[in-house]
Amino acid sequence: DFEHAFDDVKPAFGVSEVEMQRCLRGGIIHFSPFIDDILAEGKLMVQQVQQPDSTPLFSAILHGPPGSGKTALAAKIALESEYPLIKLCSPDDMVGFNESMKIEHMRRIFDNAYKSPLGVVLLDNIERIIEWVPIGPRFSNPVLQALMVLLKKDPPEGRRLLILATTGERSVLRQLDLFTAFDSDIAVPNVGGYQELSNILEQSGVFRNPQRAIDELKELSRGENVNVGIKKILLGIETAKQDRDMESRFANVVARARAQMGS
Amino acid sequence: DFEHAFDDVKPAFGVSEVEMQRCLRGGIIHFSPFIDDILAEGKLMVQQVQQPDSTPLFSAILHGPPGSGKTALAAKIALESEYPLIKLCSPDDMVGFNESMKIEHMRRIFDNAYKSPLGVVLLDNIERIIEWVPIGPRFSNPVLQALMVLLKKDPPEGRRLLILATTGERSVLRQLDLFTAFDSDIAVPNVGGYQELSNILEQSGVFRNPQRAIDELKELSRGENVNVGIKKILLGIETAKQDRDMESRFANVVARARAQMGS
Amino acid sequence: DFEHAFDDVKPAFGVSEVEMQRCLRGGIIHFSPFIDDILAEGKLMVQQVQQPDSTPLFSAILHGPPGSGKTALAAKIALESEYPLIKLCSPDDMVGFNESMKIEHMRRIFDNAYKSPLGVVLLDNIERIIEWVPIGPRFSNPVLQALMVLLKKDPPEGRRLLILATTGERSVLRQLDLFTAFDSDIAVPNVGGYQELSNILEQSGVFRNPQRAIDELKELSRGENVNVGIKKILLGIETAKQDRDMESRFANVVARARAQMGS
Amino acid sequence: DFEHAFDDVKPAFGVSEVEMQRCLRGGIIHFSPFIDDILAEGKLMVQQVQQPDSTPLFSAILHGPPGSGKTALAAKIALESEYPLIKLCSPDDMVGFNESMKIEHMRRIFDNAYKSPLGVVLLDNIERIIEWVPIGPRFSNPVLQALMVLLKKDPPEGRRLLILATTGERSVLRQLDLFTAFDSDIAVPNVGGYQELSNILEQSGVFRNPQRAIDELKELSRGENVNVGIKKILLGIETAKQDRDMESRFANVVARARAQMGS
Amino acid sequence: DFEHAFDDVKPAFGVSEVEMQRCLRGGIIHFSPFIDDILAEGKLMVQQVQQPDSTPLFSAILHGPPGSGKTALAAKIALESEYPLIKLCSPDDMVGFNESMKIEHMRRIFDNAYKSPLGVVLLDNIERIIEWVPIGPRFSNPVLQALMVLLKKDPPEGRRLLILATTGERSVLRQLDLFTAFDSDIAVPNVGGYQELSNILEQSGVFRNPQRAIDELKELSRGENVNVGIKKILLGIETAKQDRDMESRFANVVARARAQMGS
Amino acid sequence: DFEHAFDDVKPAFGVSEVEMQRCLRGGIIHFSPFIDDILAEGKLMVQQVQQPDSTPLFSAILHGPPGSGKTALAAKIALESEYPLIKLCSPDDMVGFNESMKIEHMRRIFDNAYKSPLGVVLLDNIERIIEWVPIGPRFSNPVLQALMVLLKKDPPEGRRLLILATTGERSVLRQLDLFTAFDSDIAVPNVGGYQELSNILEQSGVFRNPQRAIDELKELSRGENVNVGIKKILLGIETAKQDRDMESRFANVVARARAQMGS
Ligand SMILES: Nc1ncnc2c1ncn2[C@@H]1O[C@H](COP(=O)(O)OP(=O)(O)OP(=O)(O)O)[C@@H](O)[C@H]1O
Ligand SMILES: Nc1ncnc2c1ncn2[C@@H]1O[C@H](COP(=O)(O)OP(=O)(O)OP(=O)(O)O)[C@@H](O)[C@H]1O
Ligand SMILES: Nc1ncnc2c1ncn2[C@@H]1O[C@H](COP(=O)(O)OP(=O)(O)OP(=O)(O)O)[C@@H](O)[C@H]1O
Ligand SMILES: Nc1ncnc2c1ncn2[C@@H]1O[C@H](COP(=O)(O)OP(=O)(O)OP(=O)(O)O)[C@@H](O)[C@H]1O
Ligand SMILES: Nc1ncnc2c1ncn2[C@@H]1O[C@H](COP(=O)(O)OP(=O)(O)OP(=O)(O)O)[C@@H](O)[C@H]1O
Ligand SMILES: Nc1ncnc2c1ncn2[C@@H]1O[C@H](COP(=O)(O)OP(=O)(O)OP(=O)(O)O)[C@@H](O)[C@H]1O
Ligand SMILES: [Mg+2]
Ligand SMILES: [Mg+2]
Ligand SMILES: [Mg+2]
Ligand SMILES: [Mg+2]
Ligand SMILES: [Mg+2]
Ligand SMILES: [Mg+2]
Repeated sequence: DFEHAFDDVKPAFGVSEVEMQRCLRGGIIHFSPFIDDILAEGKLMVQQVQQPDSTPLFSAILHGPPGSGKTALAAKIALESEYPLIKLCSPDDMVGFNESMKIEHMRRIFDNAYKSPLGVVLLDNIERIIEWVPIGPRFSNPVLQALMVLLKKDPPEGRRLLILATTGERSVLRQLDLFTAFDSDIAVPNVGGYQELSNILEQSGVFRNPQRAIDELKELSRGENVNVGIKKILLGIETAKQDRDMESRFANVVARARAQMGS
Repeated sequence: DFEHAFDDVKPAFGVSEVEMQRCLRGGIIHFSPFIDDILAEGKLMVQQVQQPDSTPLFSAILHGPPGSGKTALAAKIALESEYPLIKLCSPDDMVGFNESMKIEHMRRIFDNAYKSPLGVVLLDNIERIIEWVPIGPRFSNPVLQALMVLLKKDPPEGRRLLILATTGERSVLRQLDLFTAFDSDIAVPNVGGYQELSNILEQSGVFRNPQRAIDELKELSRGENVNVGIKKILLGIETAKQDRDMESRFANVVARARAQMGS
Repeated sequence: DFEHAFDDVKPAFGVSEVEMQRCLRGGIIHFSPFIDDILAEGKLMVQQVQQPDSTPLFSAILHGPPGSGKTALAAKIALESEYPLIKLCSPDDMVGFNESMKIEHMRRIFDNAYKSPLGVVLLDNIERIIEWVPIGPRFSNPVLQALMVLLKKDPPEGRRLLILATTGERSVLRQLDLFTAFDSDIAVPNVGGYQELSNILEQSGVFRNPQRAIDELKELSRGENVNVGIKKILLGIETAKQDRDMESRFANVVARARAQMGS
Repeated sequence: DFEHAFDDVKPAFGVSEVEMQRCLRGGIIHFSPFIDDILAEGKLMVQQVQQPDSTPLFSAILHGPPGSGKTALAAKIALESEYPLIKLCSPDDMVGFNESMKIEHMRRIFDNAYKSPLGVVLLDNIERIIEWVPIGPRFSNPVLQALMVLLKKDPPEGRRLLILATTGERSVLRQLDLFTAFDSDIAVPNVGGYQELSNILEQSGVFRNPQRAIDELKELSRGENVNVGIKKILLGIETAKQDRDMESRFANVVARARAQMGS
Repeated sequence: DFEHAFDDVKPAFGVSEVEMQRCLRGGIIHFSPFIDDILAEGKLMVQQVQQPDSTPLFSAILHGPPGSGKTALAAKIALESEYPLIKLCSPDDMVGFNESMKIEHMRRIFDNAYKSPLGVVLLDNIERIIEWVPIGPRFSNPVLQALMVLLKKDPPEGRRLLILATTGERSVLRQLDLFTAFDSDIAVPNVGGYQELSNILEQSGVFRNPQRAIDELKELSRGENVNVGIKKILLGIETAKQDRDMESRFANVVARARAQMGS
Repeated sequence: DFEHAFDDVKPAFGVSEVEMQRCLRGGIIHFSPFIDDILAEGKLMVQQVQQPDSTPLFSAILHGPPGSGKTALAAKIALESEYPLIKLCSPDDMVGFNESMKIEHMRRIFDNAYKSPLGVVLLDNIERIIEWVPIGPRFSNPVLQALMVLLKKDPPEGRRLLILATTGERSVLRQLDLFTAFDSDIAVPNVGGYQELSNILEQSGVFRNPQRAIDELKELSRGENVNVGIKKILLGIETAKQDRDMESRFANVVARARAQMGS
């Protein structure tokens, strides 16, 4: 039964292409220069790990508000590395796993990675992996401890590894001493000014009158910034499509998402 | 024995018609325009998920006071979707399940749903599913974590899924970071003004003098609003039937229910 | 061994007559009009559940101070219902059961009840069933959750069920959100004024001079009310019988019980 | 192995004479009228339970400071009852038992008692049975719950049972709602005034000059009362015997015990 | 595997000579009259237990700061008793034992002791046996409870037992109600005045100029007392031997140990 | 499966040369006289344990900020001891081990060490071994207790053992009473003044203009000290190599690391 749980572990080597592509379903819209900076920083890390005389292990964490695009950007960096091994370690594949199964799952992913001369492991949503919940607070200490050790454990002689992680809970990770276990960190911001939003709406080609959508939103939310993640923006566009008055609907959905942010 | 526990899992595909109908035993009385708004909002979601170019997963939560009709309305939206797969995930079917059996039960329901091109899963009473209790507080973190992942996990290529959930504990869910894991939320109010109550009593056809019932209630409870869930109202009508002075009895039962609300 | 634990589960159908009678060993003394009110309210519930067009499930909880007669009155209501199935679910039958055995025990009792067209289940002393203890506080959350679901779960098509419960810890149940899970509640008071006590003493026929017993008690306890449960009163009469000066002994024992109440 | 644990359970029926006698190794010295009062109160309970028309279950708890003689007095009352069944349930016989073994052990003792027409069960040191420790605080809730139910559970038709318990932690038991679960309670005091101590020393016949021992103690401890349990007094006499200056040694040991009391 | 864990339990009867001698590796240096007092007090206990008419069980606890010589002195008392059975119960022999294995281990040691007409059991470092740690605080309640019962449980008819325990955490034991479970206690002090230290240095014969070592220490630590355990003093002498300037090194090491005491 | 977990335990005797070398991948740069002091102090301990007449067990802990070089220095001391047995006990080898597996792993390492006439055990990162996390706080008490006993348990007759441990959490260990369980402690500082940094940069031979790197860093961080661990400095040099403007990049990376220190 435990064994059974690992029946569907993906082939040991190679790239989890399909899974990575799914993280990128909405593409990468270059709505702000920040996006390019993040991808450039990622590229640098990819280069550094490749260097034969550098430390064989490098870890970075992408953090930012919910839906800001952390997973998509990490997947993008990983895919563009063109390393022979690219693995995703996601809570989605661990539903119903108990603590020791989770640790075993992660251990297998890293053991595979240690066999490749050059590899990337993407640890998605690590607060979910450690089962964090603010009431209590509670989390799985064994899983957290395993993560901490894996983040610091050198790959065997001649192997090189880049670890990319994502989280929406930077301060929690800091309190758990997990944040500083990373060699580097990258902040992923929300969609900020209205100009950025405008770029996205134009590119979507969905609205007849994008400016009206923005104007209505401005009125509803009264603030100089959009401050909503790209994911909610894209979802808002889809919800809007179902309505006759698409512009108003979009403004409504995004205004509501914005209000939730503050709560 | 564990296996045995799943003997009575319903046939994998299709619609849990009987179960859904049972949630609707009291029908849907259109005692207020709110009811229609809620059903309309539900319809919109049903449409959006059907759209082949939209995100394949959408989740919404119906929240409101006890007995306000959350389960009935969610069941109504699900049944009217006419999706080929409609599944109920209710604490009623998990009595005596331990944490891992609960998670396995949910996982099977979602796995079935992932096999249908288009499906609805109704997660009823999620505070009960996660075994929430305010003293402590306590809850099952593994079940909560499984829920959080299932709410965000995309169905496989080509499958589309609508998740409807109900809860009477919105603020608890918010503290658990579970509330914001939903794409959208719908508030379900109590029966509000006395006109709404009047609509219900008329439609029931049980009282000889509905106005007297309302007048007595007004006197007992001194307030501008009824503020009791439709479920308690319907139960009050039935209790009243046992008494000779039906009107007074009804007023009494509802006044007591109203007092409990505030406590 | 676990199986063995259920060897002595009573025959599935029918009435647990002997057990119910044992709850009524002291009979029901009509020492106050309250007693009749409680029995009448119970009768009404019995009628309502029988009504073919009413909701098939109704639950009520009898609450009051220790020894006030909650169990006896609930047993009386159940026996007088003359329903074909009457079952007692008592902590007495679960000594040494662990959480899952307790839940299984309750589940079996309800499963039996669901097979009868009309049934009563008496859940005695539910704070003891959930293993409540004020230090901590501690209780069995799995048992509590199972109770909460069983209290709300409709019996299958065509079956009707009345659930009667008793507790000495109303405020605890309220904090656990268990109290409001009942459709109705009935308060069971202590023996109140001295006239009520007088009624009881007369009826017992044990004392040569009941008034002296009462006068001595009044002196010892200085208060306008007796405020002791019927159970302690009856025990006090028995203890008194062992003494030569029965009246004084009785007054002493009851005064001590009264003092303990306040502590 | 679990089975093995019960290999040495004593023969089911009859009197645990040897064990009871061991509790009485120091005899019962009538150093104060209190002692006679306690034994008389115990006798009354023994009579009441024997009465065929009285309630078939009666429970009492002896409480007092450490070493005050609770266990010896309870054993005395039990032995003098001359009931056909007298059983001791002591933590001494449960070393290394886990929670369920403890409960099983108690359940067997009570099951045996339920088979005798008339029986006494002596629950010695119940704070130790429930594994109470003030830091935390911690205790075994399952064992506590089992105790609470056993204290209230009527023996079967025609059987009668007296339960005697001892504790050094009355206030703890009160907080646990365990104290009020008893029908009656008996306070066991320390050796109080110096006259009482004098009685004991005289009776022991060990000291050449008992008054000097008392005078030295008075000087050392400055207080009007001895306030030390009979058990420590008797131990002090034995320790004194090893010393040449017996009187001084005795005074020293008792003064130290007295100081510990206050701490 | 559990069985295996007990493979290396020492032969049941007899004296654990080797183990006891190892506790005494540094001998007993009579650097202060206190040392003789402690040994004398121990001798008295040994005599008392031997007395055929005394209570068959006596327990004492040696407490004091870390390294003050508690274990060595307890071993000395035990060895000099010349009882036919002398057993050591030390955390060293329980590394990796879980709670039930620890309790089983202790139970076996006591069961052996109960078979000898006269025996000593040395419970070394009981805060470590119960797994005490101040953060939380945490400890093993089952092990603590087993200890408490074993400390009070009389040996069988005709057997006599002396229990000696050691601890560095007197106040913790007091809070756990474990300290008062002992019949007597013996305080073991640090090396106190500089004269005592001088005695030790002289006797060691290691320093060419012991007075200089003491003078340097005085200068470093500014205080009227040495206040360091004999164990650290002896270790300091050894460390000093590695250095060319032995006197300074010694002063340094001891001053550091002294500073740690206060922290 | 448990057995399997120990399949890859290294050969029992001998030196874990490869593992030790890996801890020293960055070599030991003598950037400050402190480094030589630390190595000298280590040498002294190595000598002391070798002394046939000294105590056969000595333990020391190296503590300091993250990345300050604790593990490398401990490995250096161990390797230079030239003892016949040198063992590493690192959290890296215990990923996914549960508590009892961890304890078994440590026990095996010590059991091997006890078989060698002379040995060093390096316990790396002990806060990770005991699974410390500041939220809660949580840690494995059984593992902690095993460590505490192993730190104090003498090797068998004729064997001698040096225990070296490292930690980044001195104050935590102090609160757990683990710090004082060591016979000695060695502080490992960060790179301190800019002169020390200059030494390192010169020796690396990577920068064309090391002084500019230092000047930029000074400007960014405004403080008299570098206060960053040697590990981060070496990593910063590698990251810098990927950039065209190496000096600026280096200054940036180190300034960021410095800022994190304070957080
Ligand atoms: N510039 C962009 N950066 C990131 N994502 C983008 C961008 N442009 C479009 N997207 C799309 O937006 C979505 C971002 O969602 P993603 O799951 O990556 O966010 P997230 O921050 O990981 O969310 P969560 O907090 O729920 O984990 C993806 O579908 C992605 O394809
Ligand atoms: N307009 C309405 N909306 C909802 N329910 C209605 C309406 N009219 C009648 N009903 C009936 O009222 C009852 C509502 O009960 P339901 O169980 O749905 O409430 P709930 O809010 O889910 O309660 P709970 O808080 O206990 O979960 C159902 O029997 C339903 O058929
Ligand atoms: N009017 C009455 N109401 C209830 N019980 C009565 C009455 N008259 C006599 N009795 C007797 O008094 C006793 C009441 O005890 P019962 O166990 O029902 O009390 P309780 O409130 O359930 O106690 P507990 O708090 O311990 O559960 C029974 O023996 C019952 O037969
Ligand atoms: N009057 C007396 N009452 C009680 N015990 C007496 C009396 N006279 C002598 N003894 C002896 O004193 C001892 C009392 O010890 P006992 O174990 O009963 O005390 P305890 O209060 O149960 O102690 P603990 O608090 O440790 O449980 C017994 O050996 C008993 O024989
Ligand atoms: N007078 C003395 N009293 C006690 N020990 C002495 C004395 N003289 C020399 N020693 C030696 O000092 C050492 C004392 O160490 P011991 O382990 O007994 O101390 P401890 O208080 O038990 O330490 P810990 O707090 O670590 O348990 C032993 O090696 C012992 O042989
Ligand atoms: N003087 C030095 N002291 C220590 N390490 C040095 C020195 N010079 C160079 N190094 C190198 O610096 C690195 C120090 O890293 P090391 O892992 O020992 O630090 P650490 O303090 O143990 O880190 P952590 O806090 O993560 O456990 C090693 O690669 C080591 O070879
Ligand atoms: Mg993400
Ligand atoms: Mg509902
Ligand atoms: Mg009752
Ligand atoms: Mg006792
Ligand atoms: Mg010791
Ligand atoms: Mg390190």
